[in-house]
Amino acid sequence: MQAVILAAGEGTRMRPLTYTKPKVMLPVANKPILQHVIENLARAGVDEVVLVVGYREDTVREHFGDELEGVRIKYVRQTKQLGTAHALLSAKHLLDDRFMMLNGDAIVFEDDLKHLVREKSAIAVREVSNPQDFGVVDVENNSVKEIIEKPENPPSNLINAGIYVFTREIVNYLEKTPLSVRGEYEITDSITMAIADGFEFKAVRIEGWIDVGYPWDLLKANETLLSHVESKIEGEVEDGAVIKGNVVIGEGTVIMAGSYIVGPVVIGQNCRIGPNCYIRPYTAIGDNCHIGNAVEVKNSIIMSSTKVPHFNYIGDSVIGENCNFGAGTKIANLRLDEGEIAVNVKGRVVITGRKKFGAAIGDNVKTGINASINVGTLIGNNVFIGPGAVVDGVVEPNSKVY
Amino acid sequence: MQAVILAAGEGTRMRPLTYTKPKVMLPVANKPILQHVIENLARAGVDEVVLVVGYREDTVREHFGDELEGVRIKYVRQTKQLGTAHALLSAKHLLDDRFMMLNGDAIVFEDDLKHLVREKSAIAVREVSNPQDFGVVDVENNSVKEIIEKPENPPSNLINAGIYVFTREIVNYLEKTPLSVRGEYEITDSITMAIADGFEFKAVRIEGWIDVGYPWDLLKANETLLSHVESKIEGEVEDGAVIKGNVVIGEGTVIMAGSYIVGPVVIGQNCRIGPNCYIRPYTAIGDNCHIGNAVEVKNSIIMSSTKVPHFNYIGDSVIGENCNFGAGTKIANLRLDEGEIAVNVKGRVVITGRKKFGAAIGDNVKTGINASINVGTLIGNNVFIGPGAVVDGVVEPNSKVY
Amino acid sequence: MQAVILAAGEGTRMRPLTYTKPKVMLPVANKPILQHVIENLARAGVDEVVLVVGYREDTVREHFGDELEGVRIKYVRQTKQLGTAHALLSAKHLLDDRFMMLNGDAIVFEDDLKHLVREKSAIAVREVSNPQDFGVVDVENNSVKEIIEKPENPPSNLINAGIYVFTREIVNYLEKTPLSVRGEYEITDSITMAIADGFEFKAVRIEGWIDVGYPWDLLKANETLLSHVESKIEGEVEDGAVIKGNVVIGEGTVIMAGSYIVGPVVIGQNCRIGPNCYIRPYTAIGDNCHIGNAVEVKNSIIMSSTKVPHFNYIGDSVIGENCNFGAGTKIANLRLDEGEIAVNVKGRVVITGRKKFGAAIGDNVKTGINASINVGTLIGNNVFIGPGAVVDGVVEPNSKVY
Repeated sequence: MQAVILAAGEGTRMRPLTYTKPKVMLPVANKPILQHVIENLARAGVDEVVLVVGYREDTVREHFGDELEGVRIKYVRQTKQLGTAHALLSAKHLLDDRFMMLNGDAIVFEDDLKHLVREKSAIAVREVSNPQDFGVVDVENNSVKEIIEKPENPPSNLINAGIYVFTREIVNYLEKTPLSVRGEYEITDSITMAIADGFEFKAVRIEGWIDVGYPWDLLKANETLLSHVESKIEGEVEDGAVIKGNVVIGEGTVIMAGSYIVGPVVIGQNCRIGPNCYIRPYTAIGDNCHIGNAVEVKNSIIMSSTKVPHFNYIGDSVIGENCNFGAGTKIANLRLDEGEIAVNVKGRVVITGRKKFGAAIGDNVKTGINASINVGTLIGNNVFIGPGAVVDGVVEPNSKVY
Repeated sequence: MQAVILAAGEGTRMRPLTYTKPKVMLPVANKPILQHVIENLARAGVDEVVLVVGYREDTVREHFGDELEGVRIKYVRQTKQLGTAHALLSAKHLLDDRFMMLNGDAIVFEDDLKHLVREKSAIAVREVSNPQDFGVVDVENNSVKEIIEKPENPPSNLINAGIYVFTREIVNYLEKTPLSVRGEYEITDSITMAIADGFEFKAVRIEGWIDVGYPWDLLKANETLLSHVESKIEGEVEDGAVIKGNVVIGEGTVIMAGSYIVGPVVIGQNCRIGPNCYIRPYTAIGDNCHIGNAVEVKNSIIMSSTKVPHFNYIGDSVIGENCNFGAGTKIANLRLDEGEIAVNVKGRVVITGRKKFGAAIGDNVKTGINASINVGTLIGNNVFIGPGAVVDGVVEPNSKVY
Repeated sequence: MQAVILAAGEGTRMRPLTYTKPKVMLPVANKPILQHVIENLARAGVDEVVLVVGYREDTVREHFGDELEGVRIKYVRQTKQLGTAHALLSAKHLLDDRFMMLNGDAIVFEDDLKHLVREKSAIAVREVSNPQDFGVVDVENNSVKEIIEKPENPPSNLINAGIYVFTREIVNYLEKTPLSVRGEYEITDSITMAIADGFEFKAVRIEGWIDVGYPWDLLKANETLLSHVESKIEGEVEDGAVIKGNVVIGEGTVIMAGSYIVGPVVIGQNCRIGPNCYIRPYTAIGDNCHIGNAVEVKNSIIMSSTKVPHFNYIGDSVIGENCNFGAGTKIANLRLDEGEIAVNVKGRVVITGRKKFGAAIGDNVKTGINASINVGTLIGNNVFIGPGAVVDGVVEPNSKVY
């Protein structure tokens, strides 16, 4: 079966992490979100994927090429992001008679996908406690009657999961779909027209679901995925290193003596870890990283080629690729008053709902010795933070802070 | 035998440590000073203690309840602290025919107490080299002839240790004692009257004595008591941890791999220690503490529920309860010029007589990442010290330093 | 055979390291440069050395006394440094009939010295790619025809190595040598006169050569010498310490558990190392040093009696004697832009040619907790750097930075 995956948007709420790659390419448990999506599709029986790409599409094409786990991968460019119907229409020339459509930035699990794959025409629905904030699906006899956007009085607590099984006939409706109030061509409008014409969509419930909006949501997603990880040690573990719980260590990686790792933790290939570092649960470290002398990392995502070499503390944070931390640079992850952490996202204060969140840091950030990065800081890519500096709030890309 | 213990004063020279508890409740070798006093009395044969309490009496009552090591404990409230005679008079209704009276903030040892317990009526005396600074005791045929306050020409080098054995008849004199020049009802005045009436007080020499005035005196006291401690490991010590010398580790405490502990050290219950921390001699750590990754602690008192979690250095310091140190917060304990350390106590500069003294820190203090606390700093309770801040001198309670 | 070694100059380009000792006394691989010179001479058959001393001559005399490795050592004071001919003339009364003359601040190897020792009268030459920057030697039939200072068109790529074998007759020419253009009495002028008179000097090629100009050159020299070191453990290595590669550990030194040492590394006598420190290749640590808890040292020279006790990072740096680093003081050794490091030497910016260079720090420097020393900093002797301070550039001797 074929699946069309929408993967063209930046995901601006994920800035600064998306300055250099689209949201679907952000890693969770050491793989891009999109890779989790495709691998789960593969396990559910999908054998061809059409990726609708746009923003920073090079990063997607380079990572996946034309095949992953036996799944053929094709690409379609959506130059302007004019909505979900428009995105699917971009792939018109590649569509099979029946295909699945889903978003590349939300992870659905194998079992749920298997249920969908069987259907001829379907809409996945999820049960939530606050349906009024979503597109609510009115279901009758297992069929979708209507999708209503953010209704005041929701007819059910089932919402549209954004995962569909279509036959090729949907294309007719895509082409007729008018601009919506918010200025997009929306697939739900196309579906509404198809239902009006007598097409039937089965409502299929899905149970698992990992959705990410803000940088700190990656930590939650990482935590969820890592809690299912199983130990697999392909690198070298020196005598005197302690490994507890489920830990994955990639080929070519060396865990030096005195390192203390408590899983679930995944570490990529060709990393140098230690000596005497402390890696705590729910940490994902990419390839070619260096976690050095006495460093402590906890509940964090550290992307590939990043060096955290000496006396650093990284807690509840997401760190981009190719960063280098000066000796003693630390990230705070708890307010002194232990209050909930708020972060400035695109000029607006967003409550994270977390008591512990450190920083989200873009690619190629270099910090000096003894620099301090305060709770809830966002640092753009290519930033220099000088020795002894204290940073806070939002640091724009390419800036220097001394 | 009964003992009346004066435990009602704050001990303002011990601020900031006494903002939340009276001086007698400050811990040395992981027990309040008063507990050492009572335990030594118990070993000397005392079976009932009357605690004269006042300042923050709740902390005393909660800690001891009505029994300790087989000793019944009764409480008397001294609302205003009008002197030692007044304090004892507060306990009038509870007094036995014969009883001991002593201060709750000075530790006297079992052997000395055993000598006192045998007497009918006695005053403990200590030999010092500078008697002119104290109440000097003039002794004739083992009997006290007179107690003279700070005499220019001391008749002996024996001073009043403030420990007495009285018969109930002392009450008559307490009630007749006039206000002294410094505005208190003083037990020495009562005694003088009793002697004039023909009462006889045996002078009993005591040898051991641990007295504390300023916060740094707690370190000396701690050192003295810890030098007699014997190893007792009731918690878990992981492989790869090093334990040298006499070390006490309480139940439920885990010493993680790579920790290096050199006794004498006492660690309370349910602490998490390590990995890779370094705990050096003469350190006392309370219950429910966390001494974390790469932390170094030396010659210090850390009270219960305090977290010293990553990259902290604490040397020659006293840290209150429920504090939390940011990653990399350090306390300096040596002047750059290696000179003697002076501390501002209640607006007056006090020479500590020490080349090494770090800080005295009250309860509930939270510090940020990479904060620096300079030599000889006093920090009140409930203080926030921001990331990268450098503090010095006296920090008032409830303040925020950024 | 006798050798006269010029050891009278300060070596001002080596400041701040030479504020307290002459350049020849700067240690490389844990021995003064001059000691390497003398030991190599001893191995080549030299049995008497005349040291021409001047600047801080006491440090030379105290270190060597009157004998080293079977070589008699004599001293001559050159009060004013008026050139190489003048220096040699200072030793006139001690000269044998035949003797070698060389500089005390450049290390020549045993094999090369053996070739020279055999000659009656010789000048050592080295082949370089940029002869125009040196005194170029014009050689005919293995004999020196002329020495030309920085010629535009060098007659060869052989330069004068500053190592000579003379007969006593050279003295006549020394006495006749006029002041040169740059205001010195130069040995090359004396030689030119001798050649004019028919004296013959054999040109002897030397292969090895370790020359140092600036502080960072010591690191290169140290690296070269350490790469030939062989393991020799005379101190105590605790269980749980890791030693890899060639490591020398002196008598009385203790390597505590959790230390991780990767050779080539040399550590002197009576040092305390660890616990949990990380000492990386090409590090030389003198006697009576303390490298403490969690400290990391890499590619550095640390002179005797210096304490680097807790949470310090020292990379690509030269640290004087008797320094003490506050907990968490770190030296940066890489620019954030990873560019070549430039250093201000005597008011002039000098390009080091290195991407990694930390600091050169004189004797008796004390730093506070969490101080930061930036890339390419020079710190004079007797400096105090306060807690949390960030230093950069040049710090004058005896100053205080807060």
